[in-house]
Amino acid sequence: MKIGIVGGTGPLGRGLALRWAAAGHDIYVGSRDQTRAEAAVQEMTEALQGAAASDGGSMGRLHPADNETAAREGEVAVLAVPSVADDAFLRQLAEPLAGKLLIDCTVRLDPEDVTRVPADHTGSALRTRDVLGPDVRVVGAFHTVSATKLVRLDRTLEEDTFVVGDDADDVALAMKLAEDAGLRAFHAGPLETGLTLERITAMLIGLNKRYRRRGIGIRLTGV
Amino acid sequence: MKIGIVGGTGPLGRGLALRWAAAGHDIYVGSRDQTRAEAAVQEMTEALQGAAASDGGSMGRLHPADNETAAREGEVAVLAVPSVADDAFLRQLAEPLAGKLLIDCTVRLDPEDVTRVPADHTGSALRTRDVLGPDVRVVGAFHTVSATKLVRLDRTLEEDTFVVGDDADDVALAMKLAEDAGLRAFHAGPLETGLTLERITAMLIGLNKRYRRRGIGIRLTGV
Repeated sequence: MKIGIVGGTGPLGRGLALRWAAAGHDIYVGSRDQTRAEAAVQEMTEALQGAAASDGGSMGRLHPADNETAAREGEVAVLAVPSVADDAFLRQLAEPLAGKLLIDCTVRLDPEDVTRVPADHTGSALRTRDVLGPDVRVVGAFHTVSATKLVRLDRTLEEDTFVVGDDADDVALAMKLAEDAGLRAFHAGPLETGLTLERITAMLIGLNKRYRRRGIGIRLTGV
Repeated sequence: MKIGIVGGTGPLGRGLALRWAAAGHDIYVGSRDQTRAEAAVQEMTEALQGAAASDGGSMGRLHPADNETAAREGEVAVLAVPSVADDAFLRQLAEPLAGKLLIDCTVRLDPEDVTRVPADHTGSALRTRDVLGPDVRVVGAFHTVSATKLVRLDRTLEEDTFVVGDDADDVALAMKLAEDAGLRAFHAGPLETGLTLERITAMLIGLNKRYRRRGIGIRLTGV
């Protein structure tokens, strides 16, 4: 598939771009800064060539883009900006995303304490859907996934990811893409359950600090 | 240790009582209903004798009690009622719990939809502390643990548990008891992070329904 990643040069965006390109998808790596997009694509293409040399698989291609172009070129798009996108930024994406699925990965952390979300936060994916309006389908995924682990193409991922959404087909597509990225994926609930995933992310940041790790994740047992 | 379990005949209470007695602790199994406490103790004592016959370990003893007596006899106490305790019920426990640690396991689920917590819920453990007042120390733990798995003494637990609390010694004691119950335990944050654990519990209930399982749990990776 053609996948557009808005915020594709951040840690999570790079991890997904690498894993999906390795699985054969074509990726539009979006950034506000064209130079940064080009540098990221060059770096990732070299990493992929190294991986391809060792496994011989057929890789997808990476294309540098501005965020709006990434949204427009993707058959499906991912919102992977490291912090929460502001309303004006999101509104620019509404037209290029019309009729398509957007996978929201954003997490609102308390700027005073990144191990928590603001007490009054009701969920980023719900808000993204509200701002983008009814022409864009929104699910949430990849919140709790460690970018540190994703970018290591030689590593098998032990952690799972959780997809939240209200439409079964949209959830199924996001789960398929998660599996292409090497993750077990589960449908964790409706879009509003995204707030739980954001809270888990904040808790994992706290655990990483407390236990001096970088890539703590979670995996379901008994399933 | 002597451990008092308020709500000791519910699924989580039984699971903890069995695991802790198997580890050598003395357990006061509290219930509103004396007959139910006695029946639960008899049933669990038989299960323990079966387990003891196979592993030869030295078991602790189980004592039936009303909830207030369980709180009074325990050196540490556990609030394991299946739903959230009301204020009047909690206030009766303030005096017997004075000077002690209470481990709150309660989860407030939306009565209309048990796969979510009420949108305005700010956390059961915080509320328990507020109602009990400054003489009782409160931490949260065991929210996300499957009672179905705990009661199976022949099973090694794959899932982890998460302790939340503001005092390092109290958190350490709860973690030690979690390990005695056969769980890896992690300090997940301050008491307010208990709301995240309650939300995870609701999400796991949703996952159990969606994937037709009974004991889905979570385990940390990368730690």
